[in-house]
Amino acid sequence: MASVSFGPPADDRDLIDWLRLIRTPNIGPQTFWSLLSRYGSAAKAIENAPSLAARVRGGKPLRLTPEKDAERERDRVARYGASLVPLGDPAYPTLLAEVDAPPPILTCLGSSAIAGTNTVGIVGARNASAAGRKMATMMAEGLGAQGITIASGLARGIDTQAHHASLASGTIAVMAGGIDHIYPRENESLYRAIAERGAVITEMPFGAEPVARYFPRRNRLISGMSVAIVVIEAAQRSGSLITARFAAEQGRDVFAVPGSPLDQRARGTNDLIRNGAVLVQSAEDVLEGLDGRFAMPAADLFDHGSASRQVPDDETAPTEAGYEKVLELLGPSPVPLDDLARLSGISISTLSAVILELELAGKAKRHPGGVVSSV
Amino acid sequence: MASVSFGPPADDRDLIDWLRLIRTPNIGPQTFWSLLSRYGSAAKAIENAPSLAARVRGGKPLRLTPEKDAERERDRVARYGASLVPLGDPAYPTLLAEVDAPPPILTCLGSSAIAGTNTVGIVGARNASAAGRKMATMMAEGLGAQGITIASGLARGIDTQAHHASLASGTIAVMAGGIDHIYPRENESLYRAIAERGAVITEMPFGAEPVARYFPRRNRLISGMSVAIVVIEAAQRSGSLITARFAAEQGRDVFAVPGSPLDQRARGTNDLIRNGAVLVQSAEDVLEGLDGRFAMPAADLFDHGSASRQVPDDETAPTEAGYEKVLELLGPSPVPLDDLARLSGISISTLSAVILELELAGKAKRHPGGVVSSV
Repeated sequence: MASVSFGPPADDRDLIDWLRLIRTPNIGPQTFWSLLSRYGSAAKAIENAPSLAARVRGGKPLRLTPEKDAERERDRVARYGASLVPLGDPAYPTLLAEVDAPPPILTCLGSSAIAGTNTVGIVGARNASAAGRKMATMMAEGLGAQGITIASGLARGIDTQAHHASLASGTIAVMAGGIDHIYPRENESLYRAIAERGAVITEMPFGAEPVARYFPRRNRLISGMSVAIVVIEAAQRSGSLITARFAAEQGRDVFAVPGSPLDQRARGTNDLIRNGAVLVQSAEDVLEGLDGRFAMPAADLFDHGSASRQVPDDETAPTEAGYEKVLELLGPSPVPLDDLARLSGISISTLSAVILELELAGKAKRHPGGVVSSV
Repeated sequence: MASVSFGPPADDRDLIDWLRLIRTPNIGPQTFWSLLSRYGSAAKAIENAPSLAARVRGGKPLRLTPEKDAERERDRVARYGASLVPLGDPAYPTLLAEVDAPPPILTCLGSSAIAGTNTVGIVGARNASAAGRKMATMMAEGLGAQGITIASGLARGIDTQAHHASLASGTIAVMAGGIDHIYPRENESLYRAIAERGAVITEMPFGAEPVARYFPRRNRLISGMSVAIVVIEAAQRSGSLITARFAAEQGRDVFAVPGSPLDQRARGTNDLIRNGAVLVQSAEDVLEGLDGRFAMPAADLFDHGSASRQVPDDETAPTEAGYEKVLELLGPSPVPLDDLARLSGISISTLSAVILELELAGKAKRHPGGVVSSV
């Protein structure tokens, strides 16, 4: 494998090509970066991707997003007062650039200065208790007073309190739908205040409805742009625990506020603590847990901006039998690429090519962390 | 240092001598076992202790408990329906025999069969919340259902709930005063029920008022007779945390039930978890934490009954200058014997003799864990 770095799009033409590629069905961030690695530019990827998809027997033809649709999105975003921020742009959140398969393009409304700040995510239950809401406020205020920006998801309950309490010091709302889809509706005035004083961010296209399956993707962004996340009240099997899992996978610190085991809203945070999250009772506890890491600006702590990806050095053309074998091995629950290679007897580099083509053909799906499933 | 084992008193005469010795002012469990090691029997210790105390210049003469007072205590205990249980007696709680400086004699009311059971201590706030009380009930019932006996302190709140919920399965109330001093008064019917179905235990003399400074000593017994303790709701700097500290020093597992940081009654348990106690949300969590150790009877897990103590092999007679130096080094906050030896230049064996004499003369005080302070 060799490491290749990409800068941001060279010009508006290149940005439109990035947008066409990432907005194409079956192309997620993983596939986007694979294609860019393989072809060197979005334009060349667009030229070649349809023929890759066509190589999979029985696969659907790739429906590339037309140029005019990408241009239309760019124009709608601009008219809305927001901007498209590709990876490598100084307005792209520093830490998010470092995660596995970062979103190639974000849509941002509000302050672009927020990108380089030290950010901590605060997430928790929508049906939060009075104590949980108060804790979210104290936590966000306490961290804000230390110059830390708060990222959250604009949801009811904990998220709402965390944003409110950090409006003055710095707050980022990460949306599950398009930048223009205010959800929940009752938070419209909070959304406007954040757009005015902080930033609203999403990886979804302008106009996209915030459907259920987008929420985990949104949570991945909250943890990805944060040095740590604080979970305040979370039931078992809740979205906040998904954020905590992403945070752990991304190497972020996970802090959790405990509660009475008799309150279902505390079972999730208590379980997190049992599984190794750090119990925190105040913003001071979080700062202590971060152990002075905020003494330096985030930019000095982490590599900035340019994304470096692993790409195969050489690749053998996949064979017909290879496609069949891999398809047979794939099921709905994601398996690591390494296991697939072992089970299929196909080299990792060839397998990567096979998966890329299966994905473009709508037959396979890659997930963060090098795992893949059937669609 | 050599290890010496003591059996229980040989006869009623010997028991009375044990009682005289441990009821003598300035003689606590530490000093009791030092004297027994040094002289081989309580009778010989009684014979020699006054002259040891007299060697300290300016010290008070040792006021040995008269034989008739000890006999009177024995008779009052018997008339009350309770019994004196010396270390080494089968009715002495198995694990308590293993702690540093165990009480030489307990007074017990109720079932003597409880001594060898698997015991877990449950302690917590007197002003417990409704949730805390419910948790205490669930915890005691859940552990009781697994054949585990519950030890607690008969206090209001958590203790009361824990005893009530384990009356049927097995419960031990450890008192801070004499066996006849029911405290708090409102728990009289609970006390009677425990005496009937479980056991009431104390190391204090019959008739002793439960004054404030006896409560930490009582807590040491709760943890000492338990394989683990569970703390449910405890404020910072509360008695329950003292029990937790004893438990940790005695090598017992410490489990704590978390709560909202906004509730002062949870700050203590949350702090315990931050400092390494295991977060538990149910009796199942405790059993999991004990990791199957209750599959065997406690007696097979731990050395039973006979107490083995460290005694100096040889001892140089302390010098006048030695007493002065040690007294000068001692202050109100306890220091380890090792440090005293280093600072004074006196050997550990001589120092032990000096401390014993200073203690008998009311000039020094030994505490569990090999630390010593001025009086």
